[in-house]
Amino acid sequence: MSVLPPALDKLATLLSRLPGVGKRSATRYAFHILGEPPEFARGLATALEELITHVRFCIDCHALTEHEQCDICRDGTRERALICVVETVSDLVAIEQTGAYHGLYHVLHGVLAPLKGVGPGQLRLANLEARLAAVGAREVILATSTDVEGEATALYLAKRLATLPLIVSRIATGVPMGGELEYLDQNTLSRALSGRRAFEG
Amino acid sequence: MSVLPPALDKLATLLSRLPGVGKRSATRYAFHILGEPPEFARGLATALEELITHVRFCIDCHALTEHEQCDICRDGTRERALICVVETVSDLVAIEQTGAYHGLYHVLHGVLAPLKGVGPGQLRLANLEARLAAVGAREVILATSTDVEGEATALYLAKRLATLPLIVSRIATGVPMGGELEYLDQNTLSRALSGRRAFEG
Repeated sequence: MSVLPPALDKLATLLSRLPGVGKRSATRYAFHILGEPPEFARGLATALEELITHVRFCIDCHALTEHEQCDICRDGTRERALICVVETVSDLVAIEQTGAYHGLYHVLHGVLAPLKGVGPGQLRLANLEARLAAVGAREVILATSTDVEGEATALYLAKRLATLPLIVSRIATGVPMGGELEYLDQNTLSRALSGRRAFEG
Repeated sequence: MSVLPPALDKLATLLSRLPGVGKRSATRYAFHILGEPPEFARGLATALEELITHVRFCIDCHALTEHEQCDICRDGTRERALICVVETVSDLVAIEQTGAYHGLYHVLHGVLAPLKGVGPGQLRLANLEARLAAVGAREVILATSTDVEGEATALYLAKRLATLPLIVSRIATGVPMGGELEYLDQNTLSRALSGRRAFEG
């Protein structure tokens, strides 16, 4: 016999499926929701419904949107000849927050991971070449992660796009800002050395 | 202009109101929900609706239940002459999980906190004396926390119940199991000393 009412237990079980949330935290969240005015739970329920009915993928870049095209693809002020390929929408958000990029994106929604059964067919790549031609892309920036799978994906894309009349670039790897060389892994440090640039002062 | 669709942003904002969840984690949860099959979001929405429509307080002990009385109050095998007063339902769950208690409970849903405007009237105390008489209580265990507010609440209840023909007890304070005396605060250590018991071997 559980001490908690089944409805509370059910909610806690579902919440514990969120990333990094254990049963204990999930139960705490459920208690908290119960302690708030019912409008909070109702608001959450409505927001969940709206999320799955309103939000879809941009037909061009596969970012999230409530329209056919996302705000970035529709934004006439963005540099259309520059396409940045990212793994996830979170990565897109991170780059947008730097304020340093004004081109378009292409969201893969994953990385190549043969052992997990993720091949090129499972990534959102089908329209990539057609799109590069359509926007008259001059450069594609491969901004996948620098872990094994991200590197492999970047390599795959670099080869796939090699025959196209455009520059294929990869984000720089090196010492993070504020980083101390002493504590950096060898791999990063050797990359930082081989990727050195003429000093710009 | 936010990069994220309003529906996703709205859900993340609501989720960030859960205890210990920042906007960053909340956005991560929203992404995760979006990445799952829509049944997950729908299941969560349904569970939230059910929580606020089905779950209410037990008319006797104020624990959570989907009926008029909670499972513990309805359980004929529990010792009815023993009432354990706790601050929250989470505390009740913690005590139940020890398996060491077989009496009934009384959930206050708070502690006395004059600075926050919480007086005896804000706690679920109105039916306490009537209930103690109805079940023929022999002992009331005050199991509020050992922080200032919990101690004050226990003291208030001890005084309030002093005239009734029953034992009013307080849970023991002392060195936690596995604790090292060296690192214990003075307050706990002096309580452990003053609360010493004859060795039972």
